[in-house]
Amino acid sequence: MVVVMAPEATQQDVDAVVELVRAAGGDAFVSRGVTRTIVGLVGDVDAFDALNLSNRRGVLDVVRISAPYKLVSREHHPDRSVIRVGGVPIGPDTLTVIAGPCAVESPEQTLAAAHMAKAAGASLLRGGAFKPRTSPYAYQGLGERGLRILADVRDETGLPVVTEVIDPASVELVAPYADMLQIGTRNMHNFALLQAVGTAGRPVLLKRGFGATIEEWLMAAEYIAQRGNLDIVLCERGIRTFETATRNTLDISAVPVVQRLSHLPVIVDPSHSGGRRDLVVPLTRAALAVGADGVMIDVHPDPRTALCDGDQAVTRPEIDDLAHIVAVLSPLMGRTLTRPRARAGVGPGTR
Amino acid sequence: MVVVMAPEATQQDVDAVVELVRAAGGDAFVSRGVTRTIVGLVGDVDAFDALNLSNRRGVLDVVRISAPYKLVSREHHPDRSVIRVGGVPIGPDTLTVIAGPCAVESPEQTLAAAHMAKAAGASLLRGGAFKPRTSPYAYQGLGERGLRILADVRDETGLPVVTEVIDPASVELVAPYADMLQIGTRNMHNFALLQAVGTAGRPVLLKRGFGATIEEWLMAAEYIAQRGNLDIVLCERGIRTFETATRNTLDISAVPVVQRLSHLPVIVDPSHSGGRRDLVVPLTRAALAVGADGVMIDVHPDPRTALCDGDQAVTRPEIDDLAHIVAVLSPLMGRTLTRPRARAGVGPGTR
Amino acid sequence: MVVVMAPEATQQDVDAVVELVRAAGGDAFVSRGVTRTIVGLVGDVDAFDALNLSNRRGVLDVVRISAPYKLVSREHHPDRSVIRVGGVPIGPDTLTVIAGPCAVESPEQTLAAAHMAKAAGASLLRGGAFKPRTSPYAYQGLGERGLRILADVRDETGLPVVTEVIDPASVELVAPYADMLQIGTRNMHNFALLQAVGTAGRPVLLKRGFGATIEEWLMAAEYIAQRGNLDIVLCERGIRTFETATRNTLDISAVPVVQRLSHLPVIVDPSHSGGRRDLVVPLTRAALAVGADGVMIDVHPDPRTALCDGDQAVTRPEIDDLAHIVAVLSPLMGRTLTRPRARAGVGPGTR
Amino acid sequence: MVVVMAPEATQQDVDAVVELVRAAGGDAFVSRGVTRTIVGLVGDVDAFDALNLSNRRGVLDVVRISAPYKLVSREHHPDRSVIRVGGVPIGPDTLTVIAGPCAVESPEQTLAAAHMAKAAGASLLRGGAFKPRTSPYAYQGLGERGLRILADVRDETGLPVVTEVIDPASVELVAPYADMLQIGTRNMHNFALLQAVGTAGRPVLLKRGFGATIEEWLMAAEYIAQRGNLDIVLCERGIRTFETATRNTLDISAVPVVQRLSHLPVIVDPSHSGGRRDLVVPLTRAALAVGADGVMIDVHPDPRTALCDGDQAVTRPEIDDLAHIVAVLSPLMGRTLTRPRARAGVGPGTR
Repeated sequence: MVVVMAPEATQQDVDAVVELVRAAGGDAFVSRGVTRTIVGLVGDVDAFDALNLSNRRGVLDVVRISAPYKLVSREHHPDRSVIRVGGVPIGPDTLTVIAGPCAVESPEQTLAAAHMAKAAGASLLRGGAFKPRTSPYAYQGLGERGLRILADVRDETGLPVVTEVIDPASVELVAPYADMLQIGTRNMHNFALLQAVGTAGRPVLLKRGFGATIEEWLMAAEYIAQRGNLDIVLCERGIRTFETATRNTLDISAVPVVQRLSHLPVIVDPSHSGGRRDLVVPLTRAALAVGADGVMIDVHPDPRTALCDGDQAVTRPEIDDLAHIVAVLSPLMGRTLTRPRARAGVGPGTR
Repeated sequence: MVVVMAPEATQQDVDAVVELVRAAGGDAFVSRGVTRTIVGLVGDVDAFDALNLSNRRGVLDVVRISAPYKLVSREHHPDRSVIRVGGVPIGPDTLTVIAGPCAVESPEQTLAAAHMAKAAGASLLRGGAFKPRTSPYAYQGLGERGLRILADVRDETGLPVVTEVIDPASVELVAPYADMLQIGTRNMHNFALLQAVGTAGRPVLLKRGFGATIEEWLMAAEYIAQRGNLDIVLCERGIRTFETATRNTLDISAVPVVQRLSHLPVIVDPSHSGGRRDLVVPLTRAALAVGADGVMIDVHPDPRTALCDGDQAVTRPEIDDLAHIVAVLSPLMGRTLTRPRARAGVGPGTR
Repeated sequence: MVVVMAPEATQQDVDAVVELVRAAGGDAFVSRGVTRTIVGLVGDVDAFDALNLSNRRGVLDVVRISAPYKLVSREHHPDRSVIRVGGVPIGPDTLTVIAGPCAVESPEQTLAAAHMAKAAGASLLRGGAFKPRTSPYAYQGLGERGLRILADVRDETGLPVVTEVIDPASVELVAPYADMLQIGTRNMHNFALLQAVGTAGRPVLLKRGFGATIEEWLMAAEYIAQRGNLDIVLCERGIRTFETATRNTLDISAVPVVQRLSHLPVIVDPSHSGGRRDLVVPLTRAALAVGADGVMIDVHPDPRTALCDGDQAVTRPEIDDLAHIVAVLSPLMGRTLTRPRARAGVGPGTR
Repeated sequence: MVVVMAPEATQQDVDAVVELVRAAGGDAFVSRGVTRTIVGLVGDVDAFDALNLSNRRGVLDVVRISAPYKLVSREHHPDRSVIRVGGVPIGPDTLTVIAGPCAVESPEQTLAAAHMAKAAGASLLRGGAFKPRTSPYAYQGLGERGLRILADVRDETGLPVVTEVIDPASVELVAPYADMLQIGTRNMHNFALLQAVGTAGRPVLLKRGFGATIEEWLMAAEYIAQRGNLDIVLCERGIRTFETATRNTLDISAVPVVQRLSHLPVIVDPSHSGGRRDLVVPLTRAALAVGADGVMIDVHPDPRTALCDGDQAVTRPEIDDLAHIVAVLSPLMGRTLTRPRARAGVGPGTR
């Protein structure tokens, strides 16, 4: 941490800062310039945070040097992590495709979508039973009935299930059906929910908030990790910018930036970032080429009748394109495409 | 609603759209241009939404004409609403100041802050007992002990209490202590929380999400209203932009824009938008002059020791400036400054 | 300047930085922490910039402490400046209204608009003869004929003229007709144009780029100042954000922020920021209340036929509202409303 | 075009709109809804634009349906164009690498960088002789001496030259030395410069403004095209967002979006978008995989001493990575890697 003193700061002001820092068990080095004096702090940053130095007399600014997250940081955990979801790995050596319908609508639609997902190279099934929607008048999901459909389709296809939780109170209801719990973009800052999934005994897929910086996203992961759950996969899904040609702007650079800052795997959602079916295939190629550990894709047997985000769901012939892309790009990126399990699973949580 | 057909759309495609609309109980008018055909829809927009027209063959785009919110819209409720909080009105004819400490730290600090709030012209006391913080290592609030402190200070000063809820599960705990429940910026999209405060029997202060459009903000209010609670006050508190000189960019234009779209009162938080003490007074002047129905301001008896957002809390001499501003600008804006109740209140919910 | 060393930096790396800084005539203080070492630099920042320290081995980051602009900074020029335009002052003690049509269309329209401007309290006339338009198919202005119309209207009304230059080559053509040269938002980064107006012998109105930070805006002013012209007035006109309810988002906080960083006057353009007629009056109130040194407003005798930005031009009855606002807010803000000169002027450049 | 009437619009207001449209040679179809009436327009959109319909009584909004650009649109030119630069093609069947130093500093540095560019797979040499810099105190380039160095290096290596123009007045000076003229991000809205390169007889590389929408970028291209020059290559180089981990946010989705809207080739600049050396290789992979027609990369023999943007210039070993990437991804994307010309060129303009 570096404290920048104001031009008008007195010697007394500088001394006061040094004393506070030393009283908090740290050390302080003063560099006196022509117009500015700066004080470099050495010691426990959390203790310094509590000193409120930016509010002390004569202090112009306090500049933080090290990252405010710890458990998810790569600094003390240089090897990138592998997270297992119902036995399926997500990590630096594999390429994992998650696919399925945005919303579970019926057993038939979900099963058909799961077969499309498999055809596209997926080894995990996504599907929403609880949908957080901007409008209270939009389709809100099937609830527990949707969860049972997902579990049945998992039994039928062998694809472990990724599904969203939107409320701390329903984590207990959803967890038994799910192999992985998804936190959606609008809930990235829902700290009560983050803490709830931190103790739910399931891996977590944490989507980036569309208005959140990379640092805030990693802090949200830290909330989960702090409760003892380090089985977290990050998912970049586009940020909000001034550009209106796409629903959001996919921040493709976030993938290598996050992989350098954190040991957690990071995947990309090319469906929600663009919000357009015609962008799913090119953005999937970009995501895999930039080095993502996987992708998550909306598929639907009949997008024209989809109850949620039909504009972006892919179907034939995009499915064939995706299967081709993942098959070709995996070896190029030094990764093994994760294959679906050979036969139907035995329930969630199998590792 | 207007459906724009693609240049390559056939007559059959256009007919299919018209038939779908008519089958849904609406009517459709076709305008055939040189390169484009458009279809104007007349009838129930929600029914049309369910048709997924943007996914039909030959459809290029679907343009929505009317607003997607209803209960909070001014279209069918032209008079601007007055919301009463522990007897104190917020609305078009008054100017209401809410002030207090960002976080409740102790009885002494809260009482001192409440006296400062009164001195600044406030008739409502804000104070946080549950704090949603970006970092899990930051101060998280006193919890129920903080609520009791707030209730005691209300008894002492007569100022009704505005306090934040951060979790659906704690609404039941917080409501009995509070005269108004605050939804913070990070929870504007927390739909479970919005629904919980919709049935809590308390007025709600709904802060705008820092990454949310005005339309999304009004949709969040619609979630609360849909549960039967129309006692909602909106609070503009800055949006996230590329500018880094201020913590957020106060969207001052949002005040008149919202007042035109919705009948709900709208106030401004000059403390959190700028994140800097030196901006609180000028931004308060701007907020009142633009026509806000009130302001909400962080005050603290000793910002140097504040456990939360001390950088932005005002103290003497800004308190005097604020008292002067609200006294002078109220009559200019044709408003009456809301005065604190003459004597100590009798508990929350008094209207 | 502070150099942050990477965790893996060696003693040799640190020594190399210190030596480079000393060889450049500066001094360096090393603070060694548990995981990081930082080096505080004292001396000529420009000399340090040339060292490319961020590219040296072992260097993680270089943090700049002081502002990169000098001539326009308030640091060495604490008194706020007064700029005179055709004899009319813009500065800390006055409130100056600039008004007129977005584009000069005809002598009649310009004269009518000038009378409206006067009625609204303006002492300076704005009008565009050269229009930078996003579309090459949009109205591009009358060129020199427009300049002559402006000069005639100045003679008739006594209002000095503010008009835009869009090209270094035309500065010579425009300057003799103008009392103040305007640089538009799209040209804030047009360095050749900035340099050209730096030697044109006229005060300059520098609009903020809609995608520019406050620091970049002040750097653009520094370009002009560096050529010897310190007669610069800054104009906030909205920045581009994700919000689409308004054309741009007026960054009202920029006014006090700039007034603290720079000695130059700063005014607000409520017409272009909102892009909506109904926002001009409330945003003008906000601008004056926040402490702006003036405002610039689009007026048009018949907005329905305006060739440029008719959606935002005000006419009766907004003119009366504006006249009332500036009359009432000037004394409240401790300012004198600048009055138009008593009789017709004697040409540009009169100070 | 669709005109949306306000709820309070009268029959007379609707009739007035219809009459105006018919008087302008178009036709209008009225769809009367329960709360809204809309009028669909058929005919010449430019003529309708001139009617200022949004300012007519009773009109709430005017919605544009078709794109405002024509010459660069793919609507009337479905085949994607191939642009030739000194004989080197950029288009849908090739993958073209442009590389070189951000700024020309000396003959030795430029030649060394050109050899690195070739090693990385480049067939075109970029290098700046005129540098637009945010700070007037930053390095501004060698000017004409830099142009002569570039021409000499072209003779030596056979790589045609891409170099920036920053001012209409210097286009005449630069064009004889250049095979392609670059318009930088800060000049995308410099309409005088766009028009100047429109008649300069050289292909143009048009970078996207960091604050510009895709539509504005295509409108800027339309300015050049309107002067008769359709040899335009678009270059995505990142947009400004709230994220600060990277200098800009590479809008990777812009590549497929632009390729659908326009027939012009589009390339990506992975160096300036990220502003970080460690991102150049992954972002190059993403750019090629998303379908870009090429990339433009900063290389420098010794980034530690670079006078401009040294933080992002690549050197060995990234050069080898890049050579590998372009060799492997070209065939996968169905493209031929453009090879440098076999021997030294015979001057600019050879097609």
